[in-house]
Amino acid sequence: MTQSKVTIRDVAARAGVSTTTVSHVLNDVPGKRILDSTRVRVRQVATELRYTPNRLAQGLRLQRSHTIGFLSDEIATTPFAGNMVRGAQDAAGEFDSLLLLLNSGRDEGLESKEIGALLDRQVDGIVYASMYHRVLTPPAALEASRSVLLDVRSHVPLLPSVVPDEVGGAVTAVTELLSVGHRRIGFINNVDDIPATHGRLAGYRQALTAQQLPLEPQLVIAAGHDAPSGYRAATALLARSDRPTAIFCFNDQVAMGAYQAAQQLELDIPKDLSIVGFDDLTLISEGLRPGLTTVALPHYEMGRWAIHTLMALIDAIGSVPAEQVALPCPLVRRASVSSPPRL
Amino acid sequence: MTQSKVTIRDVAARAGVSTTTVSHVLNDVPGKRILDSTRVRVRQVATELRYTPNRLAQGLRLQRSHTIGFLSDEIATTPFAGNMVRGAQDAAGEFDSLLLLLNSGRDEGLESKEIGALLDRQVDGIVYASMYHRVLTPPAALEASRSVLLDVRSHVPLLPSVVPDEVGGAVTAVTELLSVGHRRIGFINNVDDIPATHGRLAGYRQALTAQQLPLEPQLVIAAGHDAPSGYRAATALLARSDRPTAIFCFNDQVAMGAYQAAQQLELDIPKDLSIVGFDDLTLISEGLRPGLTTVALPHYEMGRWAIHTLMALIDAIGSVPAEQVALPCPLVRRASVSSPPRL
Repeated sequence: MTQSKVTIRDVAARAGVSTTTVSHVLNDVPGKRILDSTRVRVRQVATELRYTPNRLAQGLRLQRSHTIGFLSDEIATTPFAGNMVRGAQDAAGEFDSLLLLLNSGRDEGLESKEIGALLDRQVDGIVYASMYHRVLTPPAALEASRSVLLDVRSHVPLLPSVVPDEVGGAVTAVTELLSVGHRRIGFINNVDDIPATHGRLAGYRQALTAQQLPLEPQLVIAAGHDAPSGYRAATALLARSDRPTAIFCFNDQVAMGAYQAAQQLELDIPKDLSIVGFDDLTLISEGLRPGLTTVALPHYEMGRWAIHTLMALIDAIGSVPAEQVALPCPLVRRASVSSPPRL
Repeated sequence: MTQSKVTIRDVAARAGVSTTTVSHVLNDVPGKRILDSTRVRVRQVATELRYTPNRLAQGLRLQRSHTIGFLSDEIATTPFAGNMVRGAQDAAGEFDSLLLLLNSGRDEGLESKEIGALLDRQVDGIVYASMYHRVLTPPAALEASRSVLLDVRSHVPLLPSVVPDEVGGAVTAVTELLSVGHRRIGFINNVDDIPATHGRLAGYRQALTAQQLPLEPQLVIAAGHDAPSGYRAATALLARSDRPTAIFCFNDQVAMGAYQAAQQLELDIPKDLSIVGFDDLTLISEGLRPGLTTVALPHYEMGRWAIHTLMALIDAIGSVPAEQVALPCPLVRRASVSSPPRL
């Protein structure tokens, strides 16, 4: 076998794994549950065959447009979105590909037209992205191309998708409070019927249950997702005679409002009240005084995952399983958590 | 003359104006200083000749790729950037064109390579964008395409460019404070050598001068552009025996820090201290309590202007003057300004 003829399929066959696994291992795609022994074997085979991911990009894609469509509901208009685009762009660059970025403004007619325009331009594949974690039915027109869902989970799981692990993120946030001794932890949740609302509540419950603590319904408030809502909800929680010693907030904006409520009541953060947010919007989490402990959305990693998975899909001759991945939300410690006050 | 042969040049010739002016008038491009009489004449001629901007897009661009390159230093990674991209995308849509979005991460080598990739894909033109207002020398490779600068002003004004009117925005902000009676107005400025720093200081000075007030150097502090810097600078300003009754902040993040300083000193906003920001980052300006009065960056309008001007450039047979436009920063009133306290 001459060096120039080595393909990803050769590596996959020799290693006894799928081409997707080879791509994931060699590209260090985050969030993959691949055994270390498999990783070692794939790398060994790739070395033996003198196969490199770079050759994958150069060799297998000669017939391609090197253009990937990135179709989003509302691109780049929120501070949340940016890192998904950046992750996708960086990953596309590794494959010598460019992103053709389009946004539909959630207009289904426009969406179909835009998918058509992308296909006219012979994109190698399409990333269908949402600017926040949603569950929906992707447009049928996507079936005409290789496609991956980004921050979207499909009602019908036919396409690979990546979303943040909302439940795990909430477990992380609440466990941080439990670990320093808090037992009365309030939760200001969102009211929208979206995965973040349900997942973060499930995680809050899970973390309490793991410590044999009951969920006390009077400590959970459903509010909006902005700072004024957080202010009102926190004010209500803190007015209780049995007020919580810590508050887990649906997001950093709600936490900003909780800070304002604490200030109004002359409660010191974190001495009198600990607060944990969600999202790690640095504009807020670094801007608040004291800095906000929160969990970060893995937007950059999700953007990378989408492109790497799309590339694996493009390379695959046979079918690739429609994996549904949830990437972890890591804790970002700042200064809003301490032990509860002695009552 | 048959209807199908009417071009933008016919309209321009009959109206006695440039094709650029015709395009600007018919597309309602913001920020153009075009006499009302000219606007009326152009529209009359267009109607007489049965010429419409839509035909402009459909007729003149048949030979084109309907793709515009949008090359940015750090796209979509800041909350500031989004509306420029959105404005450009919306305007591109009016011309049935798509944006091919690339970011260079301020790497000159990568930038040249990306311009080459855009030219390979036969883009009709390139928008060269920065995510904050900068003065620089655009890459020479841009000369191979029609190009417009967005939030960038060139050292050598060979290309059309659009930036925010930093001076005018600061005049607007400070005049808002002067108009309710403030006479001792502090200014927390940035220290970076960028147009925003210089322009906002010039505007602060201009607004004071217009009221025959001197600029008191001890009321101007050069700080960083984040909330912790704003906190420190505002604390210093407010510790003075002759402290200001109002503070104009370089941006909304600095204003967030100024709120924290006021809180620490138990000063009520706006009763004891009025604050005005800059940028209108709604995450902050709407999230602060009370809501922050600020001036908005015209990012959306700038994005639109860039595309409309690029299209005029593409349509023009002769040369188009390299206009340098500064769009106004409008005041957004919320609740952080009132009359000064009686001393």
